[in-house]
Amino acid sequence: MTQSDITIDALGKVGQENAEYLVSLIRSVPGFPKEGIIFRDFMPVLADPRGLKILLQALEEALPVPADEFDAIAGLESRGFLFGPTLASRLGKGFIAIRKAGKLPPETIGESYDLEYGTASVEIETEAVAHGERVLIVDDLIATGGTAKAGADLIEKAGGKVAGFSFVMRLDGLDGIDKLGGAPTSSLVSMPA
Amino acid sequence: MTQSDITIDALGKVGQENAEYLVSLIRSVPGFPKEGIIFRDFMPVLADPRGLKILLQALEEALPVPADEFDAIAGLESRGFLFGPTLASRLGKGFIAIRKAGKLPPETIGESYDLEYGTASVEIETEAVAHGERVLIVDDLIATGGTAKAGADLIEKAGGKVAGFSFVMRLDGLDGIDKLGGAPTSSLVSMPA
Repeated sequence: MTQSDITIDALGKVGQENAEYLVSLIRSVPGFPKEGIIFRDFMPVLADPRGLKILLQALEEALPVPADEFDAIAGLESRGFLFGPTLASRLGKGFIAIRKAGKLPPETIGESYDLEYGTASVEIETEAVAHGERVLIVDDLIATGGTAKAGADLIEKAGGKVAGFSFVMRLDGLDGIDKLGGAPTSSLVSMPA
Repeated sequence: MTQSDITIDALGKVGQENAEYLVSLIRSVPGFPKEGIIFRDFMPVLADPRGLKILLQALEEALPVPADEFDAIAGLESRGFLFGPTLASRLGKGFIAIRKAGKLPPETIGESYDLEYGTASVEIETEAVAHGERVLIVDDLIATGGTAKAGADLIEKAGGKVAGFSFVMRLDGLDGIDKLGGAPTSSLVSMPA
């Protein structure tokens, strides 16, 4: 599997040379976590000082809504933690952690979502979201959109408003974006599922 | 439980007023995750724009070794992900993710460590560490030091050198630092275990 199946979307905002450099660092691993899946590994992007710098610049330039139209950034455990707080600090916002169930101390609000087999739950701290706070949700990857949708439901259940979604990678053909209720969305690159 | 049992250590480098402001945001939750434990929750620090800014500035000013004495930053999943990449990008370094077993695609190197009951394992990608690379390890909390020690062993097994450890919080009386082989260590605040 080569990098030739990766399409540059909003990543183009950092210039073609930078975009291609970042794409060259994404590792495609066939058969992980199971047969038939191509895992897109962006850890080598983070491990490379230039790659990390381009990634953060791209996320900032590719915001789906202007920075003055949201108040905080929420990131999904674990990979959304890798750049959510960085983006928040660069924009002068706070960061809200959306964690897997059982990790956060009380009081928490939870939301379940369907996996291929069974269900999973995510939680935030009840006090984490102020009433009416506008929240940008970030994650590394949107596939079927189940986790992002659960995160959004959680923010709204806590009294916040979802201002948009920012993803690093989008898998095509899984209709993940369609689950997100029409909120503004951006993704840096896309590739076949 | 009040904040009065939290001692300002290296956090003092950002000035008394900023240090006290950050400490006021740390939430102490008795009885989580189980009876007899006081959980120290620093998520409210991240959720507060000023708190997040002070935290990142403090980590940078309190580095246990000068920034030119390490090449990369490694962070432990999940809470080390919250500020490791930010610190790395501020210093122009790359970020190495130390993950729980089974999350990273092959090839990986693993290391097991003892928990109160049973064992756990952490992994890094084999290619993540260059031979002789000097790595600063970051995590939110040092308690008994088991996870930090496992992370350090992993970096060395992969051919790297541990340059030091940077923690947000240190629990006193658990001898965690003693497990780290005399490497330079810093922590922003400390409190009784």
